[in-house]
Amino acid sequence: MVEKLVRSATQIPEVKIIEVGLRDGLQSITPVMPTEAKCQWVHAAYDAGLREIEVGSFVPPRLLPQLADTAEVVAYAATLPGLLVAALVPNLRGAELALAVAVDKINLPISVSREHSLENVHKTPEEMIAELGKICELRDSYPSQKRVHVTASLATAFGCSLQGKIPEAEVCRLAKAVLEVGADSVNLADTVGYANPTQVRRLCHLVRDIAGDKLATAHFHNTRGLGLANAVAALDCGIRQLDASLAGLGGCPFAPGATGNIATEDLVFMVESMGFSTGIDVSLLMESRKILRQWLPDEPLYGYLYQAGLPKGSGSHSR
Amino acid sequence: MVEKLVRSATQIPEVKIIEVGLRDGLQSITPVMPTEAKCQWVHAAYDAGLREIEVGSFVPPRLLPQLADTAEVVAYAATLPGLLVAALVPNLRGAELALAVAVDKINLPISVSREHSLENVHKTPEEMIAELGKICELRDSYPSQKRVHVTASLATAFGCSLQGKIPEAEVCRLAKAVLEVGADSVNLADTVGYANPTQVRRLCHLVRDIAGDKLATAHFHNTRGLGLANAVAALDCGIRQLDASLAGLGGCPFAPGATGNIATEDLVFMVESMGFSTGIDVSLLMESRKILRQWLPDEPLYGYLYQAGLPKGSGSHSR
Repeated sequence: MVEKLVRSATQIPEVKIIEVGLRDGLQSITPVMPTEAKCQWVHAAYDAGLREIEVGSFVPPRLLPQLADTAEVVAYAATLPGLLVAALVPNLRGAELALAVAVDKINLPISVSREHSLENVHKTPEEMIAELGKICELRDSYPSQKRVHVTASLATAFGCSLQGKIPEAEVCRLAKAVLEVGADSVNLADTVGYANPTQVRRLCHLVRDIAGDKLATAHFHNTRGLGLANAVAALDCGIRQLDASLAGLGGCPFAPGATGNIATEDLVFMVESMGFSTGIDVSLLMESRKILRQWLPDEPLYGYLYQAGLPKGSGSHSR
Repeated sequence: MVEKLVRSATQIPEVKIIEVGLRDGLQSITPVMPTEAKCQWVHAAYDAGLREIEVGSFVPPRLLPQLADTAEVVAYAATLPGLLVAALVPNLRGAELALAVAVDKINLPISVSREHSLENVHKTPEEMIAELGKICELRDSYPSQKRVHVTASLATAFGCSLQGKIPEAEVCRLAKAVLEVGADSVNLADTVGYANPTQVRRLCHLVRDIAGDKLATAHFHNTRGLGLANAVAALDCGIRQLDASLAGLGGCPFAPGATGNIATEDLVFMVESMGFSTGIDVSLLMESRKILRQWLPDEPLYGYLYQAGLPKGSGSHSR
């Protein structure tokens, strides 16, 4: 890519891109992708070089029929060597289901916005912290050969479509609380696309002061077009794990026409261009959009790189 | 906007957003916008708070019939108090035409890419530097009451779709050369959407070492979705003028479906959210998209903010 000369002369910093489209993308659309197609997608992402995939969510099927087969997708993903298989859980019951299968990582979202939390899971942020504590206890007591990683995602950390502005002190308070009850890491999530780069830098520094390297991942939506700019701001603060969805799948139910997560292929392209190594072949990633097109023929797919192609001089990846 | 509290307590740094859609947008599409509509657009941009508009280009009408009425649009724009009226010129002949009307600023693009320069204006970069020298001489000798600002835009500074990679030493050499022959300022333009934030920071620092504050403006296309991220990178380096086109008008003729310039309304929203002041009312700006929709009914319009609306809590601008 662009920075090849610089990269060959110096140590290349690594950035881990986490595919969350199978969870965040698929839960946001109406069609149910068959298990077979999900496994194809997981395989294609793995082939392209992704080494962490959030493959689904252990929520009641009546709430999210799109993710009812998460256990099966976990089982398939667990067969791929070196792949970290993550799943979202909304509560202790979900964690029990996740621990019963071969997940490597459990992700519990906790809305910093009280209103969003009540609306979404009918619990206050404090009740969710207590739930997280129970999940960590369960994980510790679980007779598993491997220690399952428990992470907490602070949702609506940058603003909330119900509550508006979110006090940064509240984000910091909850970041401290999730680590105190046993989470291995904490993530900052711009669930509704409210963040701006100045805010990302400020909040990442504040939370880093509390969590250190346990502030692991940032999760941005591209609702107002600032997703990649916010990702750069997070990289500036030393964040080295970023969530993304292939083709920006999912959109935003509150804003028709607005995209959901930042597109994995655009993020990989940007991060690699900037001189980081992701271990991901962006051409294979773009190729894998075909799976979405085949199985979700009516869903809008997003992403700039696919439209424009790779720049001239970026190696064999040019379209 | 988001940072209101911060801004009221401290001095607010200003960023000037320059509307270039009447030139860069309209030259990239087939339909010819009537002069009346262009004047409506200029007026709406001015009403929204924009204080510099590149209203057209003094190129032969047979080459760009879309911009054949540039002199008339300049004449109209010059009636708006405090508006800096800019026009692009491709050569000395264009500068003569621009100086004969009431322009405040002449913008000569010079491609750093030799191939792009030969393809675009049938002159080498060196021949363009010589042309710029003549333009500056003409401006100096012109019996005008005001001194017209001459700026040089280094096109394809971040990469070229014909030549691929552009050596940074070449950008620096030309930045020095344009100032030596009399340009008042120099701009860096990512004409084909190849830039990434690391590169923007590095090149801005290199050119700043040569040009100081005469490195005035950055011009980004959103071809690969990195436009706003690159704008942040330029802001990080102290650049305080950024080009943009309303609704990202224009697209990219080489990449169907890919947008052209970054969308003015998205840029204003981001820059204001980050705590800068632009003096622009983003709601009025979004309102002004109606003019494009009315007069260019078949052209795709871009921009995220318009789709998603302003965030809750961002004041009276909410849609």
